[in-house]
Amino acid sequence: MATLGLIEYADADAEVRQVYDDIMATRKTDRINNFWKAIAHDPATLRRTWESVKQIMSAGALDSLTKEMIYVAVSASNQCGYCIASHTAAARKAGMTDAMFAELMAVVGMANETNRLASGYQVEVDEQFRTY
Amino acid sequence: MATLGLIEYADADAEVRQVYDDIMATRKTDRINNFWKAIAHDPATLRRTWESVKQIMSAGALDSLTKEMIYVAVSASNQCGYCIASHTAAARKAGMTDAMFAELMAVVGMANETNRLASGYQVEVDEQFRTY
Amino acid sequence: MATLGLIEYADADAEVRQVYDDIMATRKTDRINNFWKAIAHDPATLRRTWESVKQIMSAGALDSLTKEMIYVAVSASNQCGYCIASHTAAARKAGMTDAMFAELMAVVGMANETNRLASGYQVEVDEQFRTY
Amino acid sequence: MATLGLIEYADADAEVRQVYDDIMATRKTDRINNFWKAIAHDPATLRRTWESVKQIMSAGALDSLTKEMIYVAVSASNQCGYCIASHTAAARKAGMTDAMFAELMAVVGMANETNRLASGYQVEVDEQFRTY
Amino acid sequence: MATLGLIEYADADAEVRQVYDDIMATRKTDRINNFWKAIAHDPATLRRTWESVKQIMSAGALDSLTKEMIYVAVSASNQCGYCIASHTAAARKAGMTDAMFAELMAVVGMANETNRLASGYQVEVDEQFRTY
Amino acid sequence: MATLGLIEYADADAEVRQVYDDIMATRKTDRINNFWKAIAHDPATLRRTWESVKQIMSAGALDSLTKEMIYVAVSASNQCGYCIASHTAAARKAGMTDAMFAELMAVVGMANETNRLASGYQVEVDEQFRTY
Repeated sequence: MATLGLIEYADADAEVRQVYDDIMATRKTDRINNFWKAIAHDPATLRRTWESVKQIMSAGALDSLTKEMIYVAVSASNQCGYCIASHTAAARKAGMTDAMFAELMAVVGMANETNRLASGYQVEVDEQFRTY
Repeated sequence: MATLGLIEYADADAEVRQVYDDIMATRKTDRINNFWKAIAHDPATLRRTWESVKQIMSAGALDSLTKEMIYVAVSASNQCGYCIASHTAAARKAGMTDAMFAELMAVVGMANETNRLASGYQVEVDEQFRTY
Repeated sequence: MATLGLIEYADADAEVRQVYDDIMATRKTDRINNFWKAIAHDPATLRRTWESVKQIMSAGALDSLTKEMIYVAVSASNQCGYCIASHTAAARKAGMTDAMFAELMAVVGMANETNRLASGYQVEVDEQFRTY
Repeated sequence: MATLGLIEYADADAEVRQVYDDIMATRKTDRINNFWKAIAHDPATLRRTWESVKQIMSAGALDSLTKEMIYVAVSASNQCGYCIASHTAAARKAGMTDAMFAELMAVVGMANETNRLASGYQVEVDEQFRTY
Repeated sequence: MATLGLIEYADADAEVRQVYDDIMATRKTDRINNFWKAIAHDPATLRRTWESVKQIMSAGALDSLTKEMIYVAVSASNQCGYCIASHTAAARKAGMTDAMFAELMAVVGMANETNRLASGYQVEVDEQFRTY
Repeated sequence: MATLGLIEYADADAEVRQVYDDIMATRKTDRINNFWKAIAHDPATLRRTWESVKQIMSAGALDSLTKEMIYVAVSASNQCGYCIASHTAAARKAGMTDAMFAELMAVVGMANETNRLASGYQVEVDEQFRTY
């Protein structure tokens, strides 16, 4: 059970149900993930987080699949087990194949490696990459 | 100056020059970034890292632009200044527009936020996302 | 079982028992958390860590509740499951309400988000914030 | 210069100015930090981030000073130079004394240490701390 | 089960078996860890990662035990449960005693603490440590 | 200048000078690093941190050079510029050669890579590595 427990739809008040309804309608599903049920104890955070996610993750200059893969990349770098599991599922639903997942992971691994080689070797930024 | 200094092409031995040549040929440029010049003091790491990067970052199931954006996402999450600067430049060169960069950053920011809401609220993984 | 196992009070030698006794007396409890039992295999680290925690976490310019909430904020940012669980419990014991926890998490989430927007957009520090 | 440059008030369009005006009014200042000027290239992110920060950082169950100190704690854990500088300034403005800052840092340091002792020793969560 | 499942030796094709055989021969064991079985779905990553690990972890200027302890130090800092478990086992196999493990953890904990004191106090690098 | 500024020996009170004297005597140097001067505004933290560092970093089951290299490994993983610079200098003083540094970095890079492959692929811990 999460810190404050999970709020199921049946036990939710009108304010929370309104967000749950929008999540299900937007995602074309009849399930609410534990993440939302866990933060629903704070309706302001539930609404703000959902509105932000909805705005950010909808297709724009980047398509939804690319966005979900970026979410997985960040979550794997941060070792967030919940987010890796849920966003890998979301990325697959958005069309990520096994081959795409494998390449995603290869890039994530390499970036994490060279991030530390760059810092450890104390490499100064090249003149042409400087934005300041 | 980086920890061990930078090895310029003119001062490099044959082994290092061979890697430098391949970097310039592959990337169609006549410049070697400081990153490579800094790790060139260890030719084994220079070669291994370059061969890995070349293999991983070439277009496959994911295109090069998507891969560079994932690299930026990881680097921003890890606060690696050098890598953010160099891979943002590489992503732009690969076609990332300002609008794509802005959406990339929005996803990176949101993922970093919800990664901590998920861990902080101690949310258990939903049954259907479990792979174990 | 932890890497080196847990040392229960009954099996502890005098040096370890002395620290355990002080932990229980200071915290007004008759339980020793697994954390202490796990590091008790290294009595020097057990004593040093406990003495440091006791000194740092006692009320001073900041009260104990604020300190426990800061501990949770750091632990959630670092994805340390053990520390999130134990310090959330400690913060509640010190008076953290559900509403305070929810606001704590909202700040932690937002800080983690803007930390990456600031690094990703390569924002230079404003002149008036510079301390150097 | 930040990745996309900074948008000054004089050069901002109506949408961005509206957010800038609200920031200055809310914070009772006539300055806009570089952070906002840097992300203003993406008005949607500018507005969403500001609205979220305004909602989250206003006094509620936790006072503004406590919230700013939590922001500093997260930023120091994440090594975000910009955020450490700007939120340390904000915390001071909200009333943080040198003594409070020193205790804040002591807690942040200790939490980061024990987070790794707990993970490194592979300590299992105590039965009574489990929420699942 | 890992995201893509685990590929057992009996079910592996010739390309994967060749890597598995080299892992077992190099490590003088008849077991393949789950890590390799999980990434074997991407034979290119399996081979590249194994070849890199084999090259990097073999004794050179640093002995194998020291290298395994560094691996544990990084993994504990990153909160990677799998890597802490597997590399602690590998370090023990390479000769790490309980006393060495305890000192390793003490250094890892302290480094994580002072890393944040240094960033939080915004300490500038001493002139004599500068390499730039 | 650090957040609270640096306290030079000439301006330090007796309590701080006592710690400074012990640092210089222990390290056989006549310099105090900025790190200590920055945290000296909080004499309790100055003393506690120094006493801990002195205890932890002195040769024991692990020699001083190994300990300094572990410090660098953690600092590079955490992207702490100050700590990378100062502990790389300390490791060199303790005998780290260029070849040892290069191997150290290679291990740090690889560990950071495989930490994310393990988490991203959601690899479960092998039965024989489990300590719980």
